[in-house]
Amino acid sequence: MPHINVDESLPGIRSLMAFSPGTAEPMSKLANLLLRNHEGLSMADSELIATYVSYLNDCFYCHQSHGAIAACYLNNEALVEQVKKNYQQANIPDKLKALLAIAGSVQKGGKHVTQEQIEKAKELGATDKDIHDTVLIAAAFCMFNRYVDGLAANTPTDLLTYGLRAKQVAERGYGNHIYNEKQPA
Amino acid sequence: MPHINVDESLPGIRSLMAFSPGTAEPMSKLANLLLRNHEGLSMADSELIATYVSYLNDCFYCHQSHGAIAACYLNNEALVEQVKKNYQQANIPDKLKALLAIAGSVQKGGKHVTQEQIEKAKELGATDKDIHDTVLIAAAFCMFNRYVDGLAANTPTDLLTYGLRAKQVAERGYGNHIYNEKQPA
Repeated sequence: MPHINVDESLPGIRSLMAFSPGTAEPMSKLANLLLRNHEGLSMADSELIATYVSYLNDCFYCHQSHGAIAACYLNNEALVEQVKKNYQQANIPDKLKALLAIAGSVQKGGKHVTQEQIEKAKELGATDKDIHDTVLIAAAFCMFNRYVDGLAANTPTDLLTYGLRAKQVAERGYGNHIYNEKQPA
Repeated sequence: MPHINVDESLPGIRSLMAFSPGTAEPMSKLANLLLRNHEGLSMADSELIATYVSYLNDCFYCHQSHGAIAACYLNNEALVEQVKKNYQQANIPDKLKALLAIAGSVQKGGKHVTQEQIEKAKELGATDKDIHDTVLIAAAFCMFNRYVDGLAANTPTDLLTYGLRAKQVAERGYGNHIYNEKQPA
């Protein structure tokens, strides 16, 4: 049961955003800028970074939601599961592996990122913007994950609902209007 | 040295926000909504929560910056230092102590917040909005702290600069325009 009185018909962060529409607006804008950027990291790569950090933070709602969106872009659910559990063995580019290593360090704490991790990512072609965006996506999901679980927001257990929602986000983004809508039928 | 090529004349998060003005805008807006809210938690209480979480995350730039702003509102530097190091013994209301306990749990991870912590805060007069804002401030500083240290942003060691900056923020807020300005003379 959520720790505060929210609309329990809305899942996860959407119930919190409906409770606090003022803060929902910049949070949705930040999510859109980080995850639906058309420069630098692809939308699939950004969602994989968000999914991996949410998995490390053990936030079921977030890693299911963003994993479903990544799977939607990649048309490959198994790859998303492998990135969560062991990205080193996943069939993804080495540059993305180097960025996931940085994201994993950010999840522990900012000071865990090493100069060696940064140099490796740059050698594999990561730009300053790629590194900036990776660190900020990882940091932002340390916020979103704590927001959801810190208020004990409802977490749907029916995995089908995440796929339905993922298609909606893939088509229309993380606009604030979406957070305030009911689940798709 | 920062991990990416930023304007090294700007301190901490301000150099990152100048590097990425697009994402700076919603981040500054969120900071303003959470820390300069005129409903619910006072600005001093919100800054104390931000300072405490930044201290737990060992983010020197953030706990010095926000500690200086809290001290500016409270006109009491010693109290801010005590909240960082041992808030249970600090001369602050029990309700704020209960909210700091929740913030400390959020810093570890969302699932660390307990039903008992929530009930205690409510018994001491915390509203749902107070609890929501406490969790979101704590979660947001888990983002801001990781953004600053994950990119190894420059951290001024001269504590006087934090006091000068604090007065500016206390008067004018966290508007994006402020993050893009140079340090006060």
